[in-house]
Amino acid sequence: MQGQRNTKPLYFEDFEEGRIYRYQVPGLTPDAIKAFAAEYDPQRFHLDEEAAARTHFGRLAASGFQTQLMCFGPFCRDVLLDTHAVGAPGIDNLKWLRPWFPGDTLDVEVTLVDKRVSSKRNDRGYLSFALKASVDDKPTLSMEWVVIMLTRQGSAINASTVQAPERA
Amino acid sequence: MQGQRNTKPLYFEDFEEGRIYRYQVPGLTPDAIKAFAAEYDPQRFHLDEEAAARTHFGRLAASGFQTQLMCFGPFCRDVLLDTHAVGAPGIDNLKWLRPWFPGDTLDVEVTLVDKRVSSKRNDRGYLSFALKASVDDKPTLSMEWVVIMLTRQGSAINASTVQAPERA
Repeated sequence: MQGQRNTKPLYFEDFEEGRIYRYQVPGLTPDAIKAFAAEYDPQRFHLDEEAAARTHFGRLAASGFQTQLMCFGPFCRDVLLDTHAVGAPGIDNLKWLRPWFPGDTLDVEVTLVDKRVSSKRNDRGYLSFALKASVDDKPTLSMEWVVIMLTRQGSAINASTVQAPERA
Repeated sequence: MQGQRNTKPLYFEDFEEGRIYRYQVPGLTPDAIKAFAAEYDPQRFHLDEEAAARTHFGRLAASGFQTQLMCFGPFCRDVLLDTHAVGAPGIDNLKWLRPWFPGDTLDVEVTLVDKRVSSKRNDRGYLSFALKASVDDKPTLSMEWVVIMLTRQGSAINASTVQAPERA
């Protein structure tokens, strides 16, 4: 993934609307899929090859929650960590478009589709991201979410003030 | 959680619109929160007590993805496992309304808000669930999703046919 060019930690102003972040997520092993499923989502098509073969999936497939996390992790590490992100209000339109099978590399594309400063508080803004993950150009997962990020301008003014988060 | 009364594995017909499933999720330890964060969502307010104390959260808080999974897990085990569920097309309106702090018990309520047979294929229907989790009556997380479930009627007719999944 291409790095940010501005001084870190980054502020709201350092993010460019329309920018696309591209990266790949290596395919999971069957054991990694089964271990996650046993802990969080023990449906038979995520947990057992033989049982999965008798379902419409045809074979073992990752839990959609695991697919979501594996897509989010690299973005979190490479884009969000060294920033003034203060959280997110949720996820919209998480779609599991196809099962993610063992060994399949995910091609992920995250677009910064919109950015706006809070209308109520100038010390923060909202960055709207849209993520699409695919295997061999076939869509596997998509989701949208908003990251709340402090503004350089507002933070300079309110430097000594600790404030509660605000909804987007 | 109260068990189902119909013969298992359950079909679409066995689910009652308006039914509410209630259960509790025990609070997490700080170590469980940090271990999940290190793997999936390493933002400082999920990973380190001291760093979290300097953010608007004020102290260590679980990743919203972990909160989501901990809410889903018991429902999956107690309601979905012994059924003819064939998957879900996604999650709508996942909202992280408040941080989930170590040790706080979550009260979870899942309502079957709507059910309808597929207009295209009578062997399956859509069960729409709305989940709300709270701590001491303060909303912490909410989300909505649809579970695709085979119908007893359609499955009897198409018993020997294996078919691909369909979007909701």
